[in-house]
Amino acid sequence: MSYEPDLSLEAMRRLCRRAGAKRVGRSAAMELAKVLEEVGVEIAREAIEYAMHAGRRTVRAKDVKAAYEKMYKSKRPYNIRT
Amino acid sequence: MSYEPDLSLEAMRRLCRRAGAKRVGRSAAMELAKVLEEVGVEIAREAIEYAMHAGRRTVRAKDVKAAYEKMYKSKRPYNIRT
Repeated sequence: MSYEPDLSLEAMRRLCRRAGAKRVGRSAAMELAKVLEEVGVEIAREAIEYAMHAGRRTVRAKDVKAAYEKMYKSKRPYNIRT
Repeated sequence: MSYEPDLSLEAMRRLCRRAGAKRVGRSAAMELAKVLEEVGVEIAREAIEYAMHAGRRTVRAKDVKAAYEKMYKSKRPYNIRT
């Protein structure tokens, strides 16, 4: 596979183990890296909007937090259904 | 700060730069690591369910993909609104 993830496969395996996985295939770790990168870039894009809106050129933690909460936290199926 | 992320701060900075950020504060990289770990563990948890349902003890790429699509892809505000 030519795809080289920004996130390390070892880190992906750790996340899966934290979730309770006993065995994690290499392709699964690769796929998790891919989707997390996608999510990460989307959150970052939104965070940049927040920073720009606040007249800053530096993205801060609060921008990332606000972006995440806007995009995923409140609209997640799990939260909607509870 | 005592929090030690599983994801490297350098990887988080790369994701932010891919999203178009010029400058990324250390605290922002830290926050992105934190939220991505949260998202990653949730996706992994769901992926484990899929693997178990298929009678496997090994999590595969297709489990991760299905978990991600179920949890985020179709219910995301951006997709709902387009």
